[in-house]
Amino acid sequence: MTSRSPAATTKGRRHPLGLGQVSITGGFWAPRQARNGAAAIPSGQDQLEKAGNLHNLRLTAGIGEGEAIGPVFADSDVYKWLEAAAWEYGRNPDDDLLRRIRELTAVVAAAQREDGYLDSVVQLRYGDEGRYQQLVWSHEHYCAGHLIQAAVATVRCTGERELLDVAIKLADHLYATFGDGKTVDIDGHPVIEMALVELYRETGTETYLELAKWFVDARGHGIIERHGHAPAYFSDRVPVREATTVEGHSVRAVYLAAGAADVALETDDTALLDALKVQFDHMWSTKTYITGGLGARWEGEAFGDEYELPADRAYAETCAAIGGIQWAWRMLLATGEAKYGDAIERMLYNGFLAGVSLSGTEYFYVNPLQLRGAAHADNGRSPAHGRRGWFDCACCPPNIMRTLASLDTYLATSTDDAIQLHQYADGVIKSGDVELTVETAYPWDGTVHITASAPTAVELRIPGWADGATVNGHRVDAGGYARAEGTEIELVLPLTPRVVGADPRIDAVRGCVALERGPLVYAVEQEDNAANVDDLHLLPGAPIAEASELLDGVTVLRAQGRAGTGHRPGWSFVPEAGDSVGEEVEVVAVPYYAWANREIGAMRVWLPRV
Amino acid sequence: MTSRSPAATTKGRRHPLGLGQVSITGGFWAPRQARNGAAAIPSGQDQLEKAGNLHNLRLTAGIGEGEAIGPVFADSDVYKWLEAAAWEYGRNPDDDLLRRIRELTAVVAAAQREDGYLDSVVQLRYGDEGRYQQLVWSHEHYCAGHLIQAAVATVRCTGERELLDVAIKLADHLYATFGDGKTVDIDGHPVIEMALVELYRETGTETYLELAKWFVDARGHGIIERHGHAPAYFSDRVPVREATTVEGHSVRAVYLAAGAADVALETDDTALLDALKVQFDHMWSTKTYITGGLGARWEGEAFGDEYELPADRAYAETCAAIGGIQWAWRMLLATGEAKYGDAIERMLYNGFLAGVSLSGTEYFYVNPLQLRGAAHADNGRSPAHGRRGWFDCACCPPNIMRTLASLDTYLATSTDDAIQLHQYADGVIKSGDVELTVETAYPWDGTVHITASAPTAVELRIPGWADGATVNGHRVDAGGYARAEGTEIELVLPLTPRVVGADPRIDAVRGCVALERGPLVYAVEQEDNAANVDDLHLLPGAPIAEASELLDGVTVLRAQGRAGTGHRPGWSFVPEAGDSVGEEVEVVAVPYYAWANREIGAMRVWLPRV
Repeated sequence: MTSRSPAATTKGRRHPLGLGQVSITGGFWAPRQARNGAAAIPSGQDQLEKAGNLHNLRLTAGIGEGEAIGPVFADSDVYKWLEAAAWEYGRNPDDDLLRRIRELTAVVAAAQREDGYLDSVVQLRYGDEGRYQQLVWSHEHYCAGHLIQAAVATVRCTGERELLDVAIKLADHLYATFGDGKTVDIDGHPVIEMALVELYRETGTETYLELAKWFVDARGHGIIERHGHAPAYFSDRVPVREATTVEGHSVRAVYLAAGAADVALETDDTALLDALKVQFDHMWSTKTYITGGLGARWEGEAFGDEYELPADRAYAETCAAIGGIQWAWRMLLATGEAKYGDAIERMLYNGFLAGVSLSGTEYFYVNPLQLRGAAHADNGRSPAHGRRGWFDCACCPPNIMRTLASLDTYLATSTDDAIQLHQYADGVIKSGDVELTVETAYPWDGTVHITASAPTAVELRIPGWADGATVNGHRVDAGGYARAEGTEIELVLPLTPRVVGADPRIDAVRGCVALERGPLVYAVEQEDNAANVDDLHLLPGAPIAEASELLDGVTVLRAQGRAGTGHRPGWSFVPEAGDSVGEEVEVVAVPYYAWANREIGAMRVWLPRV
Repeated sequence: MTSRSPAATTKGRRHPLGLGQVSITGGFWAPRQARNGAAAIPSGQDQLEKAGNLHNLRLTAGIGEGEAIGPVFADSDVYKWLEAAAWEYGRNPDDDLLRRIRELTAVVAAAQREDGYLDSVVQLRYGDEGRYQQLVWSHEHYCAGHLIQAAVATVRCTGERELLDVAIKLADHLYATFGDGKTVDIDGHPVIEMALVELYRETGTETYLELAKWFVDARGHGIIERHGHAPAYFSDRVPVREATTVEGHSVRAVYLAAGAADVALETDDTALLDALKVQFDHMWSTKTYITGGLGARWEGEAFGDEYELPADRAYAETCAAIGGIQWAWRMLLATGEAKYGDAIERMLYNGFLAGVSLSGTEYFYVNPLQLRGAAHADNGRSPAHGRRGWFDCACCPPNIMRTLASLDTYLATSTDDAIQLHQYADGVIKSGDVELTVETAYPWDGTVHITASAPTAVELRIPGWADGATVNGHRVDAGGYARAEGTEIELVLPLTPRVVGADPRIDAVRGCVALERGPLVYAVEQEDNAANVDDLHLLPGAPIAEASELLDGVTVLRAQGRAGTGHRPGWSFVPEAGDSVGEEVEVVAVPYYAWANREIGAMRVWLPRV
């Protein structure tokens, strides 16, 4: 039986543990999951109703009259919501939620055509003749992929097969339509690859894996270009096996890579996996923000060049962080390497979590690392810098919902002889006959106490930043897994605030430092600072104090800095080394994920060093 | 009689001198103008033929069959070409060019509808019912504006009125159609404002000035938003009189400002002029690149926030520099202030001139200040970084052509008691009975020798960077005009290379310096440097040598620097102050305008200081 988790592979070096096997019970994440289940998911359904997504599916099902509303990928938001609801039901079975899932499933099933085709917007707008005619932009496979993912989550968490039957019929239709000797074409937006592999895992039907592999291998051979589009945006410039980096639209790129990792896992394709390792490393070392944010460019929502990582115009779409987590998770399952756990931690606590408000129901699509004061004051200029309840292009909110609802499954894995803990949260982990109870106030406190129901081997990820970590009082190396055995294990991760710099090749933050504490990247907001945040400089060597009076108990950092006074409009002077900066000031920083939950004003992650 | 120049106002503090009154005869600009006339303008007509622009007009004139080709604003490129050809004829009367102007004029006249309407693409695609239905995007007024500008240039330079008659008929049609109590709407792309004021200057017909004023005043009152579009992009968020900065699409913004300056000039509207002064100052001090490039963002080809001036992703469209020069020139005419001449100089020699190759026939649309080595090596990622002979959106090439062909008219002005020299070039200037002969190898040499045919007062712009300038051996202040009288005047501008820094609020170039010499900003290209340009650091205090062996005699700078070695992927370290950089190396820099004329590779204007 597959585990009640995404990417429920039985291959790979690490075995995922599903919902029920891993349960977050308290601490940092439990209230976030509670708000996700109680507020975000119900309000998400309302938003889908209001935005017309459900209207489209009902029309296609023959209910009501009218025209399709919204973007061509509107169905996908419904399916992501369904997937979120399914995981949520897996965490916390609730009759009302099951009723909603069933109702929506019935609409989706009724909207499906006799031959298995399903895409409400294309069907309504272009009819049968319009099918797959503009696959570069139509998102038909993309919507199918999200439908399949929702169906897999539903059967895993509710045991009900209605949506799976729809998914199978659709996947069979896709298999009958696409491939060598059939239609040779690919969707402009990957996700179908991951989905088909999951359907294979769920059903054992090999044709789904075969088609997933075909979609992966079809990329980079000129299909998009033959349709008259520049291929880089669509991750179609270079074959996946030959690529050495990520490029183009960031969500497309990481979804494709995650799907390719799924194919590599299930087909034992080490050459493909090796290519993906190179790509991930290159992304992580040259095209990733300190927040784990991915995608530097607004133009094309794209990865930039190497080291092109502007703080102010960071795009860093919330969905890209989610796709990054999905990719890293599959690499972790395949390789067992801790660096992928490190990457997930950085993305999860920063680039991903900033995408949702503390209330759980307001979202960021774009996640900059700097907002200048004047930019926000002028409402006409910064439309992206207020959190919103929904978006015209609403990919991010239900993506956040499904991630939070399935977050438990990213905490731990098992091997034949051990349980691995990758992320630390209050909770219970069952593997075989052993039950681990994890108690921690992480990330506020670095102590993680683990009680095992029976003596067992536990492998604990020691983050790369955690110099001085101890397990049961013994020093362990940072970056890797520390193995411990017994029934009582105490891990201590040192949460001393850190002043960090960037690779000097990242031109955009030259001469700057950032504050980190544990897995959290910090940001300086105008709300907490008397001096103008745009002008703040940080004294790297000065002591940093911790406090937790702001923002409902988060740990706030108080560092020392100076207010800048070196304003010199124009370029007509020879600058002196050590240009003076002004008076000493306190610099107050809050976790980056918590920014923009109060009065929005100037914000910076990177501060010039004095 | 109006002068044979753009912006031929008789109001304002300075009076423009037209072609014939000012003639560039040698030095830096004459060969560029010669290539413009002999190569660029003829090849531009071929490009317009190939791209379908002429086809569209011929179809509309009833010649041939087919459908409109290309972007909706295709006509405007033809009109800009016609304007360029007219100014070129004014500089250098040539029968073949006049024949081409006449032939094209006949097609344009035949394409005009009976009631004066003229827009080939809208007419062909949408018919009479489609007129002005989508003015936000249709560019109908924009095309009309360029037609009018071409017509005005043609009558001024050839004396022939055929195109002016078309322009008058079109302007009368616009006046009959738009305004209070008529159609209340504005074009998404300004330029009609400047054009109508010029037509008023040429014809004396006050309704054109009235309509120009109406278009200026109509902006910022919700028209664009009522059509369902966000107004900032279109310079329609704030009334022109209330705006304190520039925002949105940069070419739209500066064209509108230039048109508003024309309206302010002709209507003696000091309140409007004061608002434009504030906007120009804010643009220049917070949203302008060191090259004079305007428009930081690729997304929306837009001005960024204050101090958002990334070097790598600088958009800095060539057309924006041209619009910036047009605006600054009108501000100079209105106020007589030298800072506008300084601004023109910076834009002209850098942000504008980089837009055209040394050969004169290859163009940049986008003008970045940095190109990383790896970015260029990967052809899939940097499509904008090779010069091209033409573009699908071909606004820049004919805009460059008309600017070079009319460049003479930006050199000098007159007042009742003096001649002002704003830009220095070998040439002859006639005002009243006086003729000045200017001899100079500027910008390579700082000596400008002026011989007057009779004793006269000359006011010489002393650039803000020119500390130590002398006139006839006497020190004069930098930044302003120095007055001299007599028949022999010698100005010496010190061209010592300068190491300059940026306002520290420009985060993107923190800790960096740039090299300038005279009006030229310098760039470091990989072609001339052994060390990796991406890693170069500059020693600000070290001597800088000059040489002129490269690139056909331009002055090359040889500075001292170090190759960087501080690569440290990731963020997990506490940086030390004074991070070491590597070995000493020579840093070779060429004028920014000359970059990308050889092997294209890494390029930087800003270098980190050691």
